[in-house]
Amino acid sequence: MADGLNMSRRIRRTPYTDRVEQAGVRGFSVVNHMLLPKAFQPSIEEDYWHLREHVQLWDVSCQRQVQIAGPDAERLVQWMTPRRISTAKIGDCYYIPIVDRDGGLINDPVMLKIADDRFWLSIADSDVLLYALGLAEAKGFDVQIDEPDVSPLAVQGPKAEDLMASVFGEEIRSIGFFKYKRFDFRGTSQVIARSGYSRQGGFEIYLDDSSLGHDLWDTLWEAGQAFSITPGCPNLIERIEGGLFSYGNEMTRENNPLEYDMAKFIKLDGSVDCIGLAALQRIAEEGVSREIRGIVFGGGRVPTCSKPWPVMVGDRQVGQITSGVWSPRLEANVGLSLIDRGFWDIGQELTVLTPDELERPGRIAKLPIE
Amino acid sequence: MADGLNMSRRIRRTPYTDRVEQAGVRGFSVVNHMLLPKAFQPSIEEDYWHLREHVQLWDVSCQRQVQIAGPDAERLVQWMTPRRISTAKIGDCYYIPIVDRDGGLINDPVMLKIADDRFWLSIADSDVLLYALGLAEAKGFDVQIDEPDVSPLAVQGPKAEDLMASVFGEEIRSIGFFKYKRFDFRGTSQVIARSGYSRQGGFEIYLDDSSLGHDLWDTLWEAGQAFSITPGCPNLIERIEGGLFSYGNEMTRENNPLEYDMAKFIKLDGSVDCIGLAALQRIAEEGVSREIRGIVFGGGRVPTCSKPWPVMVGDRQVGQITSGVWSPRLEANVGLSLIDRGFWDIGQELTVLTPDELERPGRIAKLPIE
Repeated sequence: MADGLNMSRRIRRTPYTDRVEQAGVRGFSVVNHMLLPKAFQPSIEEDYWHLREHVQLWDVSCQRQVQIAGPDAERLVQWMTPRRISTAKIGDCYYIPIVDRDGGLINDPVMLKIADDRFWLSIADSDVLLYALGLAEAKGFDVQIDEPDVSPLAVQGPKAEDLMASVFGEEIRSIGFFKYKRFDFRGTSQVIARSGYSRQGGFEIYLDDSSLGHDLWDTLWEAGQAFSITPGCPNLIERIEGGLFSYGNEMTRENNPLEYDMAKFIKLDGSVDCIGLAALQRIAEEGVSREIRGIVFGGGRVPTCSKPWPVMVGDRQVGQITSGVWSPRLEANVGLSLIDRGFWDIGQELTVLTPDELERPGRIAKLPIE
Repeated sequence: MADGLNMSRRIRRTPYTDRVEQAGVRGFSVVNHMLLPKAFQPSIEEDYWHLREHVQLWDVSCQRQVQIAGPDAERLVQWMTPRRISTAKIGDCYYIPIVDRDGGLINDPVMLKIADDRFWLSIADSDVLLYALGLAEAKGFDVQIDEPDVSPLAVQGPKAEDLMASVFGEEIRSIGFFKYKRFDFRGTSQVIARSGYSRQGGFEIYLDDSSLGHDLWDTLWEAGQAFSITPGCPNLIERIEGGLFSYGNEMTRENNPLEYDMAKFIKLDGSVDCIGLAALQRIAEEGVSREIRGIVFGGGRVPTCSKPWPVMVGDRQVGQITSGVWSPRLEANVGLSLIDRGFWDIGQELTVLTPDELERPGRIAKLPIE
């Protein structure tokens, strides 16, 4: 491959990569040592409009599952997150921040409770498996930790439910948001959740057998023709507007869950046994010094945001945009930034400095950005 | 970026990326959530010949340092590896396999002993920092674990020593293989080791201040003009011939150090306290069922090896090539494969199955492949 990403076994293909290539993928990213398609349409903007109107098939196999099983599985997962997980039932999906001793974010997976003694963590881009392996030693927990052969395929967009019903039956419509049920595919039982990395509605199929990858893709692709299906991928414009954060972009270990409006998810009253509890209690007591916000700003179409862009109020830097892009719907740029206390009110006027040396006027916007 | 890898903050730039782009980089890979240049020359073969004859400047910042410091630093590092590290002196670099409880390989970094209570692990592609964080909890070790602002720049090739001496002085020549010394650069003290991911000789500069990145690159680049310097990167042909393995390609957690001729590095007599000791003792007693080997095979130039290629003896699969490429020097293909016991003798004849549906005749070769 002369340009772009070089391929090797280290950067793993997925059960759908052959199909994605046949569908004309125009670029990949790498998440969890695995390929994530990053572009199909001639432009990210066409892709955005299509996602809001129709339905797309996304290869999100890179959302690897860290499977934690055994008598102490729940205790280990609980020790990694400040969200109370004992309330989860089989069939529930919980968004759980994973933290270190200082409350710093290690990852922000979706947890699926598969059985009373078995959990999947559907992870963002860091090796949570290695963290879990280390922590399991810490308390001598009786658990098995591995990465099963599970490759999520997402069906996203307003027509997703109709498409899924045409393939898996009407029962699909009964799945609640962030719940999963099991459905038959070729005589196998597959986990299907109402979830996904967009705000347009949809499902994720946690295919647990790579050898069925082509068949699953083809089945949805063929049924999808009636719904104007296209191949797709997480859309940067849509996710920024939707206030969906990306680990490694908006969040690193320098950050804590309280900066991301996760207070509603987490339990700091001492009733859960989490490694970061004391640190998070201290942070909560003092109050966070910055919080995540949406930014809408002008100055014409921005370049790619590969280095954070300073956000200024007067001469003071109050934040940095870690993901930013032109929104054709708003005819303005949109971005995500942690913003310092005192400057984070909705409507606050500010300036964004981009590498093209423009000073772009903007303001803080409510998330999701309407 | 229309084709290839998409850029974002999550896939981190390095202190040298601006220069690498100015030098005409033609592709990147991703290692440790960071960009690794993958091609400059019109072909990997021109790059190979140049590396064997002259000198190259490689941005290997993706070899991130996991810094483990504090009173229990040595105990924690020792617990992660079966190699005895108490023998290391300040200034030593040790190649240390990092293992899990089953003896499975987590990573294969170079350890630099920076002080009696401070170590750097210069890692391959997995989040060793998260593993260390978890393990540190295990025994209540008194350590600080972080990723310092250290960005290795490699100078590789037979003219590397002369180039480095012209910049840092004659003292450079006194650095032993897998040793480091400290040298002044712009009034700062920088670690420079005689090491690198090639067999052509050279150095790695562990620049510990990103803001000096452009200056360091430019200084070596200008001095390098007298030595026919080019920008470069780890060369697939050269590393396969040299028997340099790649974590994620040749090695995963399914593998153990004894399969990679590391018995000479590791200590299984019970005198070191390593998490994987008991498992490795069992494996050593039973004998490994496969070992790494070089393969030389024909059938003309192979395609890119993004999925392993089966290695057959008759109808039996005895291995799989995980890295393979055409060698213009040997006018044959070269590859690396774990090979089953009974079939791993040098000279064993075999067949390699490649995705172009060719059955390619080959044989097992001694590493490095001369």
